[in-house]
Amino acid sequence: MYNLIQRADGVCASEGFFADGISAGLKKNNALDMAFIYSDSECEVASVFTTNKMFAAPIKHFRTKGNFKTNFILINSRNANAMTGQAGVNDINEVLSNCPDMLNPIMSSTGVIGVRLPKEKIINGMKLFDITKKNPSNAAKAIMTTDSFSKEIALKVTLDDGSCFNIGAMAKGAGMINPAMATMLCFITTDAKASKQEMQEILDEVTKTTFNAISVDGDTSTNDTVLLLSNSKSGVYDREAFKEALFKVMHFLALEMVRDGEGATKLVTYNITGAKNDKEAEIVAKTLSDSLLVKTALFGEDPNWGRIASTVGASGVEACEEKLKISFDNLCVYDKGNLYFDAEMEKKCAVVMGHKKFTISCDLGIGDGSFKAYGCDLGYEYVKINADYRT
Amino acid sequence: MYNLIQRADGVCASEGFFADGISAGLKKNNALDMAFIYSDSECEVASVFTTNKMFAAPIKHFRTKGNFKTNFILINSRNANAMTGQAGVNDINEVLSNCPDMLNPIMSSTGVIGVRLPKEKIINGMKLFDITKKNPSNAAKAIMTTDSFSKEIALKVTLDDGSCFNIGAMAKGAGMINPAMATMLCFITTDAKASKQEMQEILDEVTKTTFNAISVDGDTSTNDTVLLLSNSKSGVYDREAFKEALFKVMHFLALEMVRDGEGATKLVTYNITGAKNDKEAEIVAKTLSDSLLVKTALFGEDPNWGRIASTVGASGVEACEEKLKISFDNLCVYDKGNLYFDAEMEKKCAVVMGHKKFTISCDLGIGDGSFKAYGCDLGYEYVKINADYRT
Repeated sequence: MYNLIQRADGVCASEGFFADGISAGLKKNNALDMAFIYSDSECEVASVFTTNKMFAAPIKHFRTKGNFKTNFILINSRNANAMTGQAGVNDINEVLSNCPDMLNPIMSSTGVIGVRLPKEKIINGMKLFDITKKNPSNAAKAIMTTDSFSKEIALKVTLDDGSCFNIGAMAKGAGMINPAMATMLCFITTDAKASKQEMQEILDEVTKTTFNAISVDGDTSTNDTVLLLSNSKSGVYDREAFKEALFKVMHFLALEMVRDGEGATKLVTYNITGAKNDKEAEIVAKTLSDSLLVKTALFGEDPNWGRIASTVGASGVEACEEKLKISFDNLCVYDKGNLYFDAEMEKKCAVVMGHKKFTISCDLGIGDGSFKAYGCDLGYEYVKINADYRT
Repeated sequence: MYNLIQRADGVCASEGFFADGISAGLKKNNALDMAFIYSDSECEVASVFTTNKMFAAPIKHFRTKGNFKTNFILINSRNANAMTGQAGVNDINEVLSNCPDMLNPIMSSTGVIGVRLPKEKIINGMKLFDITKKNPSNAAKAIMTTDSFSKEIALKVTLDDGSCFNIGAMAKGAGMINPAMATMLCFITTDAKASKQEMQEILDEVTKTTFNAISVDGDTSTNDTVLLLSNSKSGVYDREAFKEALFKVMHFLALEMVRDGEGATKLVTYNITGAKNDKEAEIVAKTLSDSLLVKTALFGEDPNWGRIASTVGASGVEACEEKLKISFDNLCVYDKGNLYFDAEMEKKCAVVMGHKKFTISCDLGIGDGSFKAYGCDLGYEYVKINADYRT
């Protein structure tokens, strides 16, 4: 067994990790727009990237490096360095040549697609970095784009024998969040003594039920990146404890991203059970969390269960109205052909939908498959934010 | 060869077809809410229905009848008779028992899901029907739900030998319009002497490039129905001329639905070429027309070509940035790694996006596959209309 305690120092929770955010003039009004994570000893790296075929230059750059250890991540916002071809990769090499003391430095970018990196600003910005600083909150702020709040978390994990390790993370993501890898950057640091292979296996597994289970608008970006760095300094490792801690960290950040979904006012859990198998449950959950008609009904706090039934039917999985059951939290509105949705129930459901968090459950009544996805509503603010993102 | 001339009398364009719309009190303010199409002789029927697993009672009812001829379609709006189980089918049988003189009457419904049919109102409404009336426009108005205008068209088709036949149609659909069968009802009448089998084959084929190529919000409904009735009265038939005329009718109505997309201000054609094959081109076209980020950029008249590139990459088909070309109408902004998107080009593209109709072209540069899809933008009105549809 093990014990998890939350701590406040984000990506600097583990000894030997440093981070800060500075303003390089990429964003307006001297807002923080560049960050670094530095480790005073070399780290193993595990990674998950977007499945988008137009993956951005930072991902190309990472992939050219093969198997490597690193001690430095450079991150900028406002420019994604995507659709910039080989020139974009060359730009990264040029930028990173300005930190010659670092071991295999990694660059990560987020922002507008199709514009070359403002290299001069970035190189000048790097001169402001002080790698002895532990300002994880500044780093978390600097990587924000349309985020309305920064996202970070850290945990101390104590095993039964009293030994312990730490894990901390920061993430950015608010829109373009898709079930097939969210539009997001996430950087996780730990002093757990995990091997590269173990970290990669566990990261892949945990990604499925966290970052790959959330949706804001169903779009997948060019830059999605999760990096997990371990410096092994604690000398401590327990697979189950590490996996649980990583899940807690990633699950928290995933829900923070949905909560911050562009213009979102609600965080909704889609709890699908009784599907033919887990894969079909996942399809239903993600189809619901992506449905515009469901999302606008959520925004209107309209318990329009017919749209939920219709969306289940449209998802393409095995389903039929005679076996379906639909509930808002613990209020069952439809059960295998029996309709419990009268005026009184509608009022009760509207109260549930007025909450900031609630669960929509669909039991398909077919088999044992289950999946939970997390989504938000879609309102006027989403349109406002995205109708003119670039200006 | 043949000649097509537009005529004004919708579903009554062919001799022997009658139609009208009346108010049965289903909608507020005595708006037209029930319609009929009557033929004074029996008709062959071809049909296409939703792929939604929760298909509504009218579709169940139709499917129980097997191979049959008919002379009567009863249509109501405001209530979809969906998720109503066997009771919903029984309701239809009860309603249709009030027109005992009709041959295998068909019922079609559109509106809110999960509420039993208001049978009494509908049966009373039927008493107002006068089957000698030819008011196709009233019928087209009566089937509207969130539509802001009614949709009808008719063509007279003259063959080289001077013989001719007619085809007319009406449709409803504005939101919940999906590439995999739009949320819509469409009723087509003709006096062409087409066999049931020929009509079904041609209807299936034409549906692919018309009603199945449009998207407003990517949702598929429980009630989607296209019915094609022929009374053969003209005695005339030519396969090519019939197919062309049916395409023109359905293509027109499909674009009318997109133009009327809930809150839509623009009709956008996604012209995909150079895909590995036609199927992959179709996937790209539909992913673009469904993308929230693309749709909100259209609404903001923001030529954010990076979102287009990203969405192509996210669609899952074979694609790479070195081979991709993107244009707004005839303005090429990105061509195989070459970026033509400077401040001047951005202004020019914004002008194109200010138009009510324009084309976004993506040449994937991989193979010969092509497909055209049709979509619209997403603005505040869409949210307003859908956040509280039921009230």
